[in-house]
This record gives sequence, C-alpha cells and structure tokens, in this order.
Amino acid sequence: MKIFGLSTNHALAEAVAKELHTKLGLIDIQAFADGEIYERVLESVRGADVFVVSPIAVEANDSFMQIMIVIDALRRASAKTINVVIPYFGYGRSDRKAKAREPITAKLIASLLEMNGADRVISIDFHAPQLQGFFNVPVDHLLGAPLLSEYFKQNQLVEDLVVVSPDHTGAGRARNFADLLDAPWGVVNDLVAKETPASPEAIVGDVTGKNAIIIDDIIDSGQRMEVTARALRANGAKSVRVVATHPVFSELAGARLAADDDINEIIVTDTIPLINANQSDKLTVLSVAPMLAHAIEAIHEERTLNKYQIAQADDYKVVK
Amino acid sequence: MKIFGLSTNHALAEAVAKELHTKLGLIDIQAFADGEIYERVLESVRGADVFVVSPIAVEANDSFMQIMIVIDALRRASAKTINVVIPYFGYGRSDRKAKAREPITAKLIASLLEMNGADRVISIDFHAPQLQGFFNVPVDHLLGAPLLSEYFKQNQLVEDLVVVSPDHTGAGRARNFADLLDAPWGVVNDLVAKETPASPEAIVGDVTGKNAIIIDDIIDSGQRMEVTARALRANGAKSVRVVATHPVFSELAGARLAADDDINEIIVTDTIPLINANQSDKLTVLSVAPMLAHAIEAIHEERTLNKYQIAQADDYKVVK
Amino acid sequence: MKIFGLSTNHALAEAVAKELHTKLGLIDIQAFADGEIYERVLESVRGADVFVVSPIAVEANDSFMQIMIVIDALRRASAKTINVVIPYFGYGRSDRKAKAREPITAKLIASLLEMNGADRVISIDFHAPQLQGFFNVPVDHLLGAPLLSEYFKQNQLVEDLVVVSPDHTGAGRARNFADLLDAPWGVVNDLVAKETPASPEAIVGDVTGKNAIIIDDIIDSGQRMEVTARALRANGAKSVRVVATHPVFSELAGARLAADDDINEIIVTDTIPLINANQSDKLTVLSVAPMLAHAIEAIHEERTLNKYQIAQADDYKVVK
Amino acid sequence: MKIFGLSTNHALAEAVAKELHTKLGLIDIQAFADGEIYERVLESVRGADVFVVSPIAVEANDSFMQIMIVIDALRRASAKTINVVIPYFGYGRSDRKAKAREPITAKLIASLLEMNGADRVISIDFHAPQLQGFFNVPVDHLLGAPLLSEYFKQNQLVEDLVVVSPDHTGAGRARNFADLLDAPWGVVNDLVAKETPASPEAIVGDVTGKNAIIIDDIIDSGQRMEVTARALRANGAKSVRVVATHPVFSELAGARLAADDDINEIIVTDTIPLINANQSDKLTVLSVAPMLAHAIEAIHEERTLNKYQIAQADDYKVVK
Amino acid sequence: MKIFGLSTNHALAEAVAKELHTKLGLIDIQAFADGEIYERVLESVRGADVFVVSPIAVEANDSFMQIMIVIDALRRASAKTINVVIPYFGYGRSDRKAKAREPITAKLIASLLEMNGADRVISIDFHAPQLQGFFNVPVDHLLGAPLLSEYFKQNQLVEDLVVVSPDHTGAGRARNFADLLDAPWGVVNDLVAKETPASPEAIVGDVTGKNAIIIDDIIDSGQRMEVTARALRANGAKSVRVVATHPVFSELAGARLAADDDINEIIVTDTIPLINANQSDKLTVLSVAPMLAHAIEAIHEERTLNKYQIAQADDYKVVK
Amino acid sequence: MKIFGLSTNHALAEAVAKELHTKLGLIDIQAFADGEIYERVLESVRGADVFVVSPIAVEANDSFMQIMIVIDALRRASAKTINVVIPYFGYGRSDRKAKAREPITAKLIASLLEMNGADRVISIDFHAPQLQGFFNVPVDHLLGAPLLSEYFKQNQLVEDLVVVSPDHTGAGRARNFADLLDAPWGVVNDLVAKETPASPEAIVGDVTGKNAIIIDDIIDSGQRMEVTARALRANGAKSVRVVATHPVFSELAGARLAADDDINEIIVTDTIPLINANQSDKLTVLSVAPMLAHAIEAIHEERTLNKYQIAQADDYKVVK
Repeated sequence: MKIFGLSTNHALAEAVAKELHTKLGLIDIQAFADGEIYERVLESVRGADVFVVSPIAVEANDSFMQIMIVIDALRRASAKTINVVIPYFGYGRSDRKAKAREPITAKLIASLLEMNGADRVISIDFHAPQLQGFFNVPVDHLLGAPLLSEYFKQNQLVEDLVVVSPDHTGAGRARNFADLLDAPWGVVNDLVAKETPASPEAIVGDVTGKNAIIIDDIIDSGQRMEVTARALRANGAKSVRVVATHPVFSELAGARLAADDDINEIIVTDTIPLINANQSDKLTVLSVAPMLAHAIEAIHEERTLNKYQIAQADDYKVVK
Repeated sequence: MKIFGLSTNHALAEAVAKELHTKLGLIDIQAFADGEIYERVLESVRGADVFVVSPIAVEANDSFMQIMIVIDALRRASAKTINVVIPYFGYGRSDRKAKAREPITAKLIASLLEMNGADRVISIDFHAPQLQGFFNVPVDHLLGAPLLSEYFKQNQLVEDLVVVSPDHTGAGRARNFADLLDAPWGVVNDLVAKETPASPEAIVGDVTGKNAIIIDDIIDSGQRMEVTARALRANGAKSVRVVATHPVFSELAGARLAADDDINEIIVTDTIPLINANQSDKLTVLSVAPMLAHAIEAIHEERTLNKYQIAQADDYKVVK
Repeated sequence: MKIFGLSTNHALAEAVAKELHTKLGLIDIQAFADGEIYERVLESVRGADVFVVSPIAVEANDSFMQIMIVIDALRRASAKTINVVIPYFGYGRSDRKAKAREPITAKLIASLLEMNGADRVISIDFHAPQLQGFFNVPVDHLLGAPLLSEYFKQNQLVEDLVVVSPDHTGAGRARNFADLLDAPWGVVNDLVAKETPASPEAIVGDVTGKNAIIIDDIIDSGQRMEVTARALRANGAKSVRVVATHPVFSELAGARLAADDDINEIIVTDTIPLINANQSDKLTVLSVAPMLAHAIEAIHEERTLNKYQIAQADDYKVVK
Repeated sequence: MKIFGLSTNHALAEAVAKELHTKLGLIDIQAFADGEIYERVLESVRGADVFVVSPIAVEANDSFMQIMIVIDALRRASAKTINVVIPYFGYGRSDRKAKAREPITAKLIASLLEMNGADRVISIDFHAPQLQGFFNVPVDHLLGAPLLSEYFKQNQLVEDLVVVSPDHTGAGRARNFADLLDAPWGVVNDLVAKETPASPEAIVGDVTGKNAIIIDDIIDSGQRMEVTARALRANGAKSVRVVATHPVFSELAGARLAADDDINEIIVTDTIPLINANQSDKLTVLSVAPMLAHAIEAIHEERTLNKYQIAQADDYKVVK
Repeated sequence: MKIFGLSTNHALAEAVAKELHTKLGLIDIQAFADGEIYERVLESVRGADVFVVSPIAVEANDSFMQIMIVIDALRRASAKTINVVIPYFGYGRSDRKAKAREPITAKLIASLLEMNGADRVISIDFHAPQLQGFFNVPVDHLLGAPLLSEYFKQNQLVEDLVVVSPDHTGAGRARNFADLLDAPWGVVNDLVAKETPASPEAIVGDVTGKNAIIIDDIIDSGQRMEVTARALRANGAKSVRVVATHPVFSELAGARLAADDDINEIIVTDTIPLINANQSDKLTVLSVAPMLAHAIEAIHEERTLNKYQIAQADDYKVVK
Repeated sequence: MKIFGLSTNHALAEAVAKELHTKLGLIDIQAFADGEIYERVLESVRGADVFVVSPIAVEANDSFMQIMIVIDALRRASAKTINVVIPYFGYGRSDRKAKAREPITAKLIASLLEMNGADRVISIDFHAPQLQGFFNVPVDHLLGAPLLSEYFKQNQLVEDLVVVSPDHTGAGRARNFADLLDAPWGVVNDLVAKETPASPEAIVGDVTGKNAIIIDDIIDSGQRMEVTARALRANGAKSVRVVATHPVFSELAGARLAADDDINEIIVTDTIPLINANQSDKLTVLSVAPMLAHAIEAIHEERTLNKYQIAQADDYKVVK
C-alpha cells in the first residue's frame, strides 16, 4: 500500500499518512508557464495498492487534471489498484441538466476518472447521494455528520439545541444531524426568507431560546448562512453555530462569517485547504484525516467500512 | 420514422401514433410458459429513426426486458437510430446506495439501455433529476407540470388555491407547480405529521379556506396522500385535489383514494395503464400522448424541444 | 469465498453450499407490487470471491434481473470477483437470427451479464455449444451427460441399451451419451415421424427388444418425447426412459410424461425447480449440486476443471 | 457509395462492382518481405458508405489483416459507414470451446472487426448460424441455397432427385435444400460409414435409382465427399452431384473430386478463388456477385433484404 | 453547421466564423471562484454538425476542461457530430514515457476527448506526427508550413535562403520547409552548440552570406532560438528570421526575441493568443483562420482536404 | 508463472525459459492449408501469470494472429494475467498518417492486443518511443543499447570510437549510444549522401582514423548501412561496425552485409530469428534472453525494472 498526496491540500494527505504510521510516496509535480502539469512517480508502485489523495478544489481544473495525470502514470507503472481519495468532489453541484443544453459536469468528472482506470473512489458528503450512481466502480461514500456531531458532544454543546437547514433542499440533512444529537430540527422557508429575512414565520420549528445549529454540506459564498443566522436571531435563538463539511469559502466567506456578530462559531472540516480564511477564533476546523485513514485501512485489509456511513432509515429509503 | 408499442401500455403508444397521424409498426410479441419473451419486428426498419414506446411498469422486469429485446432486434435489423420512449422510468427510486451493499438499480437500467444501443431516451418526470446523469446518450426529460397545471386553468379551478407537498423532499416540486398556477404553496412536515396527522402545526403555510392541491411525482400505495389530505382538511382546507404524474397505484390505491371522503379529485396521467383502478368519477386521467408526440416530432425534425421542459430558475440552479 | 442463492431454485443453492460445508451468504430480496425487485447483500463481500447461484428460469425475466441487480450490488460492495452460476441458461434457444428482424436474445443476456461486471459464468449444457462464444469472459461449461449416464451404471440399467435422439439436431448428443454407456444409438427422422408417428422407418437404427433411452437437453412441453416414445414402442422397444438435463416442464409436461404408459421413467436434474411436476414414482431427479460444488471449489483453488467437461473427439472437432 | 476490393478474390469484387454498374475504388496494396502489408486508399471516402469485399481465405491471416488495415484507413479517412463484405468467413469452424483451453477464433475475428469500426458485416453461409450472435453490429447473412438450387432448376436437373447430407450435422441443410427442389432427402450415418463405407445401411433414406445431390457448406479436403459419393453409388444412386457454397479445396480437393468417377459434377460458388483447382469440365462455379450486388444495393437504398435470406420454418425456430 | 468559440483564443474562433460568412453560436461560459467552469449552449444544436474552436493553451487545464464540458453539453443536446478544432494541442510534448513512472499526458488528453464523444479532431502541427495514432476517431492534421512558406514568397524573401533547424529532432521539418522554398537547409548540432554556441562547426550546412530561417513547431521560452540565431550570425548569416507555428511564448519570449539584435523577424501564427508578447514591429502573426475555415467547409461538404496536408515523400514514408 | 513460446522465434522463448530455470508451457499449434491457425494450451493456466513470447516478424500477420489466438485461449482458460512479450514489434514503422487515407497499423496492432485482453506488453526498441502511448495497458519498453554497448566494452573495442547515425532521424539514438561508450558521434546527411555517397561533407563529425559504429534500430534491406559504410571508409574510417537491435534482414541483407568489404562486423540481437542470414564470421548475434528473463522475473515479483531502461536525460525530456 502506498499513499500519494498532490498539490491541492497536501497537508491533509500528510495527515492521513501520519494516521496510518507511514509516509507519503515520492512524486515530482511541476507546473509550466502555460498551465501544463508534469508529474512523475518517483518510487516503484508495481503491484501496489495505491491511494491518491486530493480534493477537486481551489483551482478545480488543475487539481482534477493532477489527479488524472497521476492515474495515467500509475496505471502505466503497473500499480495493482488505483484508489482515488477525493475529500471534496468539486463540480458535484452540476449534477443534472436543469436547462436545455447544459452539461452534467459531475457525471463527466466521474466518467473520466473511471475511464482513466480509477478502481475505486473514496469521497465525503457528495452534494447529492445520486452521484454514487454516476460511477460503475465502487464508491466509498463517507459522511461528515458523525464527525461534526461528535464535536458538539465532546464539547458539551448539547443543551437546548435546534438544528436548522438554511433551505428546504437540506431538510433531510438537518433531520439526520438532529437525530445524531437527539435534538429537534427546523428549516428556513427560503422563498419567504428572501422577502422578509427576519420574519418569524420564515422559520419552520421553534428556535426561541435555543442554541441553533445551521447545517449545510458546502459553504461557498456564505450568504445564505448569514441570512439564516439573522433570521434565527430575530426569532429568539440564543446562539448560532454554522456547520458544514466543505469550506469552499469563496468571496472571503470564512472571514466574513467570522466577523458576523449573529454567528458564534463556524465549524467545518479540512477537506478543502483554508486559503481564503482568516484564522479567527470563531473558526473551528475538524480533521477528516482519521476518517480517511480508517477507510483506507479497512479497504486495504478488506474489512467492512461503515463507521462513517450511518444513514437515517426514514430518509434514505429505496422505495417509498 | 417508425413507432412501435410494446405490451405494457399499448394504448398510450397507439394514442401517440394517432397524434402523429401514423400507425404503430407491426411487431410480434409472445410470452412463453417460463416467462421468456419472443419479439420479432414485422416490417423493415433499415435506415429508419425508430421510436419504441413502453413504460417500465406493471411487471417492471418483463416490460424492461421487452424493451431490451426489441432494441436488440432493431439494432440487428439496421435501424438508423433507436429512440426509447419510457413514459414512466421504473426502478427510478433506487437511485443511490443508501445502505452498504445496496445496488443502484436505476443506474443499472440506464447503463443496460445504453450498452444495448439505445441512441436516446425520452421520459417524463424522473424521480430525481440526477437520473439524467446516469446516461451518456441524450435524454429528453419532459415535465408533467405544464400538462397538469393546464388542467386547472382550463377547468377554472384556480380560485383560492394552495399547492402542498406531502413531505419535505417534494417541496421544490410544489413550489414550481404553485408558480405555474400563481398560487401560494406549503409543505407537510411529515415527521410531525406521523405522530399527530391532523395537527395544524404539521402544515407549513396557510391552507384555511383554500382549495388545496397535493402534488407528488408518483402515487404508489397512496397512504401518504391519504394522511396529507386528512391533515389539510383538519386545517380547514375547502377542497383537496391529489395530483401526480405516475399512477403506480399498488394496493388498490386508485380505488382507495377515490373512496376517501377527504379527497375531491385525483388527477394523474396515463404514463402507466390503470390496471388496478376503479374508473371512479373522482379519477381524472390526462393523456401524455400529445406531449410525447410533440417530442417525437421535434426530435425527428431536429427542432428544439422545450415546450414541456420549463424549469423554475431558482430551484434548478447549477451553482449555489 | 462466499456463495449466494437467489429466489429461483434456492434449494439448489443451499445444496451446493452444503456440499462445500459452508452456508449461503445472507441477502435480503423483496419484490414490490409493480414487479420491481429490491436486493441488499447483508454481509461484507469486500475482497471476496463471490458465487451467485440462480438459473434463468420459471419467471425468466425476474430471475435474470435478480442476477443483474445482485451483481450491481456486489460490484459496488467491492467484491473481488463475481462468478455467476447459472445452472440453466434461459433464452439459450434464441441463439441466432432465423428470420429477418429477430433479436438474438441469448447474446443479449450474455452481453448484459458481461457488461454488468460478471467475471465468470458457470453453466450446464447450453442449448448450443456456440453460446460460449457469446462471452468474452471465461465460461465454465459443464456437461450433464457424465452425471446422467452414471445413474444408468449405478442402477445396472445397462443391458440391451439403445440411445435415441428425438430429432436430427440432437444426433451428436445421443452419440456421445451412447458412447458413455457403450451402447448403440439411433435418431428419429422427425419429418417422417410427424406424418406417421408409429411408422417403423421413422427410426434410424434398430430398437427392437432394446431398452431405449431418449435423450435431449431440455424437456419443455414434452410433446416430442411423447411422440418419440410411441414410435419406439411401435418399433419393438422393451422399455423407454426419457432423459434430459433441464426440466422446463411447461404445460404440466412432468405430470403428462409420468402418466404416459409408453414411458417407464423420466430422468432429469435439478437445474430448474420442479414447480409444475407431480412427484411421481416415475420421475427421477439427479442433483447437479455436487458437480457445481466441485466446479466452484476448483475455480476457487485455481485447479483445472475437466471432470464434467468430457467431450467426444469426433463430434466436437474444430476443423473438418 | 464506394466499393473496394482487396487482394484475395479481387475478381469477385470486380464482378460485384460490374453488377452495380460502377468501378472499384482505387487502393494501393503492397506486401513487404517480412509479411507486413501496406494499404492506402487512393480516393476520397469522406462521408461515403464504403463496402470492402474480401473473403478470409487462401492465406487466412493475410486476408484478414488486409481487411483490418483498410478499415483503419477508412475510419481515419472519415468514411461515413464501413461495410465489410466477407463472402467466406474463414475461422468460422472454430466457433466453440470443444476442449479445455481452446480459443474461439471465430468470435475473436468477429470482435476484432467490430472493435476496429466495422459498421456492418455481409457474409454468406456461416458454418453455424449462431455466428450472427458473435456480433453486435448488424449482420446480413445471405444463403447460398437459393442460388445453388436455381442451378438445378434452370438446367432441368430435377428428376428423381434425392438430397443427401454427408453427416448428421448437415441434416438441416440437406432438408432445406431438398425443400427448395421439392425432393426427398437423406443423411449418411458417418460413424457407420467410416467402418464400412459402402454398406447400404449407412444411408438414411432411399437413394436407389436416384440422382443424388450431396450438400455441405464447405469442401475442404473433400474426403468426406468422396466417401459419401462411393456409398451412394454402392446403394444404387444413378448419379452423384457434389454441392457446396465455399470451395476451400485444400489438398488439391478440386482436382481430386473432378477425377473421381463416382462423382458426375461439382457445383460450388466463387466466394473463394479457385487457386488449387483444375478447371475441369466437371467443375461448375456459380457466381455470388449478383447476390452480393443485390445486398449492397438494398443496404445502400435502405430497402429490406430477404431475397437470399429464405429459411425453412421448421428448422430455424426460436423456441422448441 | 454551427461553430462555437470558447474563452481561449476567442478571436481566432471569430475569425474562422467570419471566413465562413457566419457567426459563432451563442454560449454562456462562466468561471467560479474555485475554478469550476459553467457552460451552457444557448441555441439549439439538435441534429447539427458542430465545430468547437479552442486551443489547449494559456491555462492548459482550464481550456481543456472548457472543451470537455462543452462536448458533454453538446452530446446531451443531441448534436449530430461534434468536431473539435484544437489549433494548438497542448500537452503534445508529453508523448512518450521517457523515464519510469511518467504519464503520457498527450495520450490521456486524446483518450479523454474521444471517450467524451468527440467525433473528429482538427489540429495543426502536432509536436510528433505519431499523435495521430493516439486517436481512433478521424484526425485532420493540418500543416503550418504551406502558410508560413507562402509568407516568404509573397513578400519576396526568397533570395539566398537557407532553412535551419535549431536541433537534430527538427531536421525533417527544416528539410520540408526548405523544399517548399526551393532552398538548401542545415541543422544545428545542439550538443556542440551548447558548449560553444558560436562555433562554426556547430552548424551543419553553409549559412555564410545567406538569409537564414530558423524553423521549429513551438516557441516556448525561446532560448534555443536565441542561441541558434547567435550561432548563425557568427557563421556569417546575413539575416535571421525565426519561424514557428505555435507561439507559446513563456517567460516573455515574444518580447525577448523581438529585442534580440541577432533576429530580424519573428513569424508565427495565431493558434495561441499572444498574451505575453509586445506587439513589436519585428513580430509577424499569420492567421490560421482561412486554413481552419477551409478545413471545416471541406469536412462539412465531405470533400477531400489536402491543400494543407502536403508531406514530403522522402521524409514521411511508412516503410523504410 | 507460466511461459509459452509460439512458432516464430521459438528458440528465443526457450532461451528465456532456460534463463528462468523453467520449461516452456505445452501448447499445440497447427497451421491449415488455407492459412488458418489452430492453437490449444495443453496445461492448466487457471489463476496463473502467463507470459507469451513471440515477435511480430518473419510472416508478420501469421505471427500476430498466433499471438491473438493464444490470448483468446488463455483468457477463456481463466489465466490471471496475460503478459505479451514481443521482442520485435512489427508494423511499428506504420506509426503515423503520412499521406491522406493511410492507416496507422502500429496503433491498430496495439489496440487489438489491448482489446483482446493483453494485460501488459513487454517489447524492445520500438521504432518510435511514442508507440508506448498507443497503449493504455502498461508497456515495459526495454532498450537494446545497454546490451549492445556492453559487447564493445567486454571485447575491448572501445579505442578511437565514433558512433554514426545513418540518417538524421537516428541522431538521438547515436548520441545515446556514444554516451554509453564515452565516444564522440556523428550523423550522415542522407540527402547529400544520396547524391554523392562518398563525399566527405556528407558526414557530420570527424571519422578520420576512427573505428566507426553505425547504429540503427532495424536492419531491413541493409542498403542504407552499405551506403553509410562506404561514406565512412571514404572519409577515412579505420573500421566500420554495423549495429542494430532488430535483424529484419530482407533481400538477404545479412549475407550481403557480411560480404561487404567496407564492413568489419555486423552486431545484432536475436529478437528476430535469422532465417535469411548466412552464419558468417562477421555476424555477431547477442541474445536478449537474459534481458527478457530479467524483466519477466521483475514483473512477476513486482520489483522495479530499470536495468534495461536507461534513457539519456537531454534526449528524452518531456518539456522543452
């Protein structure tokens, strides 16, 4: 078994290797003036189970092409299996054709990985669970919720909780997270919220006097989080914590959210490196490295892998 | 251009042909004692654009294999293009791996159609729009909402309307339908609803004195519709109409809903033949034949096809 | 190594597991009102050599789709190899395009299994040996003849034998079976036989005073067997035994043949469950479970597998 | 539409072009000292329906590779469709795995043609009809029987006929041919025949005083034809005509058969060039050029193609 | 026929459209903060032959992914054929595995284009002609030499010419270019040249008193051009003109070369936009737009296309 | 691990097996009168890593089809991996489309091997290194230079050396070989050489009083070697040795070169059997068997393999 980290989020790859009491494999990565990338694997991988760790993030196309080029090199270098660990699966929001003549880029990314010879994909919190079906190879889809909820338990932040989804599409996510914390949950009716952000009736569920957790999969520009926090405060929430797995943090979202008085804490993971974020006290970053290391170990030793794959029965059912 | 209908919902195939002022192509279909199906196309399709019309329904595996076998025959008989019109895409609810070691049967069905040589799929109201991404061939995904909403307009059922989703996963669908009818909308919080079905607070949005429309994509056993109708009545709804594109109608759902005093009317389409439904006065069936005929004609004449592909901008956006 | 049985002929799968001193893997299989099947593998198969046992029979499309769906689940669950044991390969008779615009469904079935990720197929007595060429993956094609002929030897039914094929297409099969029993053989000229079933000249070869064995691969409606038995009796056969590997037994063939006075015994195997057969004394069912267990063991231990693959040199030659 | 002939049987390609009132396309074909072949298409094929005519014969591997290389050139030269006309499909007898660890070369040939981009295959009298199922692309499988039987009708050779198959595997072929000529048929029991070639009981059916036609698909070494002719004469046949579609004629079979006093005439087609045959008076060669021209024209004009695809109902049925 | 230009070198796409007396198709292209690209084709392409024009250059991965995403959109939007015009094929220099465990990225790019559904690729001056063999789809490989040589003829720069390759790998290119201008040619022995750049013996061929043309396919950093120019001057060349098809121009190569007193003129084409080049008088840019327009027209009208595909007989022969 | 040799260069296969202290696997190979080949693997390969050794040479199509047919047999016989050792990769010179409507046969050969199931290719000195990119499976590309240069060292032929390429396309090869022997190098300007073969100025580099080595990858007709030897002698070379990896030796090249007084020695390897060569004293044949055995062992034991993969840094660089 060998683990390689690429340029994007190299720190996470190193943390994963450390968890596994090993070192990252040696690889030479160079970028040229015209954007071309050169990669060369510097140690033998003949017959090895190889894990490549990189999100599709920061510069999505460059990080994706880095993954593709190293797969090509590994395949030609006779690796036994090529396992791609993509903590954040960029382009995941382009998962259907909403308007005529749109692409479905998430499917394109999935198909290209598969065609290039990826034997398995390990990822965390796809934007839609249907993305698993974009692949024919096995996908180990891990969930961030157990890790994120554990933070609240360990820090004794479980009194008077309410979990809120910032819009209706995340209602299931909020419900599952509430279940892990044994708390009630609610949802923001975002159509109403848009018109009158602070209006009490925009919140489904009671938040008065509660410690609110707003949960989403991604924080991109963070605007929806800001609006939701304001509404929760207006409805009497005692405190507001913003929780998400993937800190895309465009438009300085990390800094802006940290500066927002309505928000007490921002809790994310390190699937994406925090390049545009001030390292504010209000920002808590939990590492997915132990989770990924656990998955890699289980895969390599062919043990079952469900510690981080808990799903709520009533939300993820196959047939109505 | 030639159109063939298979055993399942042959009436719809005939209606489509009639709309196009043509006749169905001749095909011999036999079923043997051990369940094997024999099909033979009885007229030349050499060089023709062929459209095969059949839902994956009633006996899902038999109707799917009928489609597969006829594709094989058409490909070997040198059809120019093979276009599969699947008004109801069965197995569509198995669209992700919710638990470890589950299949993703919707992807399997999609892959098999594609591998067998289907050049294009035309379908109506997939259970999740991400199913489009399960295919690499073009998918013309039509929407039932324009057809169903038109019924309300033409029958002047547009006073005091409110559109309600029976659970949170259908909130977007309700919102879009409400928009077509220029009406407010709501959603049933089904967790609360389960415990106290008639409780007022289970309904998000105001339904008092309103003519409520409950909308979903599929009516299977119909239980959720019954519960929702009761809750709406308890909350003061003047009337309740149940609307869905696909009448799977298991467990005699059609008859049960028609006999339910809380429900004034059930409005569905003919994507699936109504085998288990009493032909009650309360049951209205709108035909998708004109919509499918329109699509087939546009495809054959290579014109754009968006009359039935209206999507609400704020719901189906690609990037947050 | 793990073995799973599906709904069709679950008893055979259990018998195979017992022969291998193991138990069947746990799997949840459900059928819904609209014919959709839900399957979930209930134990870890990560890294395992998995064998799935099911004929394509009884309800051919349902049993085939059960196989396909479980392959999808196993592949996504990271099984190392997926080996499909199909004792009776349904649709095998649709192996060529006899008329314009027919499908070749046997090829379709083979292609779909392969495309879905089956690594190997194990089957018994294909309708035509050319079906092996419909696959690119390895096929272990076992023969029923050694098992069936052994029955005659062990029960001392080897005096005055003659082996007869019910029509010219089975002449090679009769010749091989006769060779295993060191007996003469004959063939029914079925064109003549149709017109004058009892006419002596319809039988090629001498059957007078002989104990006749009629051999075929499949007994479907059984009519040809009845006609042949009558002709053999009319030509002076002392006894008539009907032998075939696969008891499709449509139109109550099992019961009808058992009630036929011209027939002394019907000897088949358990590749297909005997749903429509009376358990008459005249019906002997030999189990293929030891043969399949032997094959599975040899494959798993990577030993050669030819105990049940004896072929007659002069019949199966490659070049004239 | 453009037609190209390769080195093997160039005369047939020219005859086909002549039938279609056109000329063969220009192509440069060279063979080098180490057996490598160089081909260059000398005229534009951009957007054209191209037909390549060559049997896989004489030097089977060279003729096959000529076909493959020209397909590669045509595909890269932007031909619209590539249709391969293979009058004799060499390697067709290697159509199943008779012994452990044999290849199925006919499937290999079929797969390679398909993978290389052949859009369609046109051939005559496959050794087994199941070869159609080795392809996924359309196969137009023509029959030699109508052409060969017409010869007897036009030359008034239809009195006192009997059609005989030289062994049991060709019984169906003899029966079909007899049907076209309204004659009885028989079969040689070749096991008996081998031991006592002239024994009367080796012939199934009455040939005394008859004009016998021995029919097969291929004449390779011709030994079986010689043995059969002798047996027919010994059983009182008035005359013996040997008929086959494909004159492989190894070991000077053409000359040997022509010199055999038991044989009155040898009737074959020109699917394979008669390199090793003396041009004896007893050798009649019928041209398949009109048949192929008819097929090419029908394909190009997208008309149905069944003049040469007559099959006997009771022989080629799909289900028993 | 519809033509689309992407972000990279949009000016060239517009020039091509103008040459064809048409306008570019409408397409919406957006880039997000995390580097993800969104594209939507804004007009119907159903049944159209579509040409997408973009080099893989400037930001190689972004321009490549733009091409890939629009192909996905076009395929799903039912374009009839998707033709990708890539004036400069970036990553083309990574065309073999020079060291263990390197990728072959040019092959990867080719495979991905093909797998995604590109029906044809049109490009100019691949780094190695073998890149054509990386594709299975037709490649129309155009040559820059006719265009570049025509410039010299039209500007009467044909006196006392000598064409020089800056290293041995480009010797064939220099020879062909010399042939078009009816001039002698030479080559720099770059090993010697490295040690003693101005040494007379480093130049193969006589350049004294000649107007030298240094030719290459790509000018990247331009260092080799500078060294070669100096050596030519030191060997008595009257003037030095630097010629290349693709101006990659990294490290401000354009400006540096223009400022080099040894160099009289730099002649390139517009396959890559000149972002980093000062618009010096010494820089001449010839447009490939007419050449591409000619190719697109020929392809669309299915005419042969060899005006820009002239190859010298003695250099590009297939067999020694 | 099992090793099989085919008909072409069986001696080399045996030598490889001997180096590995094993015996060749048993295989039955027959050729029929019409050129068809029959192969049957005579021992179990179930689960084995199989290596097949054969050049594509002598009769290129026959040796290629032998390889293809045995791959088919091995795949169907459940070999674990199929590794094809092709010491000389015939058709390698057809590696690009030099003129319109040419094939790229080297790519065709590569694709067919891959499609048929070859898991890995091992070869020596491809005509162009880009051929590695024609494959997606791993290619272990070995170099002949270390072996050939070692001969000079061991036989103390290293005084006053100069390495010469017979034309400009081989300049890199000469440079690398010179580097291994620490010698200067030169190149023949073959355009000039053609006109005045003995003219001093046709040789780049000083050869006077030197022991010249002419190096190429292939000796086909040997004419270029003869011309070059004469030019070297005319320029004062003391001795001339001709060196190449692959002795194609058409037109009795081996004998002709041995009889040429300008040539002192011809040094080749045994990748191709020397069928047309007189066994002259001047002909030295070095065996590649140890090199191939080393590679096979390294692959089987999953060790890195670079003893014979030395490449010169400045010649094989990825980016300029």
